Amino acid sequence: MTKIKDIGEFGLIDRISKKPIDKNIIVGIGDDAAVINTKKMLVLTTDCLVEGDHFRIEWFKPEQIGMKAIEINVSDIAAMGAIPKYVLVSLAIPKNLDIKFFDGIYKGMWTVCEKYKIEIIGGNMTHCENIVISITLTGEVEKKNLSLRSGAKPGDYIITTGHLGYGRAGLRMFQENLKGYKSVKQKYLEPKAQLKKAFKLAPFINSMIDISDGLASEIKHICNESKCGAIIYKDKIPISDEVREIAKKLGEDEYDYALFGGEDFELVCTVSKENIDKLNGFLVGEITETKEIRLSSNGKETLIDKKGYNHFSTIL
Amino acid sequence: MTKIKDIGEFGLIDRISKKPIDKNIIVGIGDDAAVINTKKMLVLTTDCLVEGDHFRIEWFKPEQIGMKAIEINVSDIAAMGAIPKYVLVSLAIPKNLDIKFFDGIYKGMWTVCEKYKIEIIGGNMTHCENIVISITLTGEVEKKNLSLRSGAKPGDYIITTGHLGYGRAGLRMFQENLKGYKSVKQKYLEPKAQLKKAFKLAPFINSMIDISDGLASEIKHICNESKCGAIIYKDKIPISDEVREIAKKLGEDEYDYALFGGEDFELVCTVSKENIDKLNGFLVGEITETKEIRLSSNGKETLIDKKGYNHFSTIL
Repeated sequence: MTKIKDIGEFGLIDRISKKPIDKNIIVGIGDDAAVINTKKMLVLTTDCLVEGDHFRIEWFKPEQIGMKAIEINVSDIAAMGAIPKYVLVSLAIPKNLDIKFFDGIYKGMWTVCEKYKIEIIGGNMTHCENIVISITLTGEVEKKNLSLRSGAKPGDYIITTGHLGYGRAGLRMFQENLKGYKSVKQKYLEPKAQLKKAFKLAPFINSMIDISDGLASEIKHICNESKCGAIIYKDKIPISDEVREIAKKLGEDEYDYALFGGEDFELVCTVSKENIDKLNGFLVGEITETKEIRLSSNGKETLIDKKGYNHFSTIL
Repeated sequence: MTKIKDIGEFGLIDRISKKPIDKNIIVGIGDDAAVINTKKMLVLTTDCLVEGDHFRIEWFKPEQIGMKAIEINVSDIAAMGAIPKYVLVSLAIPKNLDIKFFDGIYKGMWTVCEKYKIEIIGGNMTHCENIVISITLTGEVEKKNLSLRSGAKPGDYIITTGHLGYGRAGLRMFQENLKGYKSVKQKYLEPKAQLKKAFKLAPFINSMIDISDGLASEIKHICNESKCGAIIYKDKIPISDEVREIAKKLGEDEYDYALFGGEDFELVCTVSKENIDKLNGFLVGEITETKEIRLSSNGKETLIDKKGYNHFSTIL
């Protein structure tokens, strides 16, 4: 028997990918979201929060669960260079859930929807032993802003929009019951999509993706879709002092947090050398022709292993 | 503490409904799917299958699970008078699931997609203790075919497109390990959306809905959205001899199957007396001004109770 976890995310994507037939499918399986040719280009994405996997009710307020459910989808729409528009909510919840908890989830979703001027337009509800929130979010994009995973070119610089490792550091604090660093816990509990940054970047970059699974994993996605490789400059990865301190206290490596941790929801993009001055961000690597992902530090290069390439590798 | 199950589906919908602000939202929360004004009218729906609730892996082949996941969404699109187009799949699966099982689910989804000439254009995967398949399906509709729950008018006849009770009868056979009646089991394992029937009906009817939760529940939905009531002629509800025999063997009521059972995926529509000759189907009731749902049999009328009005009342 071959198990799901033995195949890995990319193997699974290969298994479920088919070349689009309809010419109106501009982007199908394999990017942050799908794009359909309508009057305006329509962008569709779906992402799912599972209790015990993406959140624990001992750590998250129901409002924060709802907020996170929308933010992670806005993050996908942002990574396409698109503007979020309409939300469908597919909610599976335990029969005995407190109605206040249910209300809290929706309150959180609405709060974020109002922030982005988006609206929940439908969905469905059913029951399940664990809470499962599956969100579908549509967006609109102008052709000049469309930012795919597949556009990276050898020689492109790799840019990230913010400090990394917060998502994993916050998670590890909860798991190990580590006190202090409230702002790190807060960033884990209330991640924010980088819609404004994405909108500014979109006209100038060759490819873009949001960081839900760690910098290394996302660069692997870009390279996979763009048929190229990358070198990551380990020492240039932006990591805050707080995250370094937390990793140290837990006897862990802050670069593991940034490279393989995930849930930072910053953006990674690749940009030609000509356009590099037109945007802000942290330069963390370069796109290469050889199809490997290498990590460079102090003049030494190592191949990055498979950790972080797989949605199923979560340590939660 | 007020529990989810104490509120009921309609209470929950009230809690999460807000009047759309954006004028391009033609239909928001409260119908089978949402409608957005693009070049062609875009229809969006989402529906979810949860292991142990909507299917059991002891009963269903993985292909049948995949087929059902798509059919139930096509059924929602059909009930809008729309043509299905694009699918997003949000899949939560156990880490130790056999990859053959995963492949089987997708094979089933593709089989149905090909039948309807629709395409899977995206989605996401995560893990969960139970299998949860959340599908988002888009569709296109011409304004003249748009068939809402809210269009029923007092005096309308209520029509259903096929025999009812198969869904619940098949489920009860599996639950009670009842032998025989293979075709009934088959209808439960492989429900079919009524897209062709819906397309023929759409130009002539005032309201339409698909039967996922039982005839009484769906009529309640129509009445709720149309601010009216209904009388159902119990003796005219089409129930096959097989379903009657199965109910008898299990000491149950075949009308309970039809009224409150669900998963038949036939359509219910309401039509003016002027248009009744333009369509085929079984006349099972009439829309009334008084806002009650009554069941009429042998000259006696009874109010229908709350059974079947609630997604959370499944007996699985």
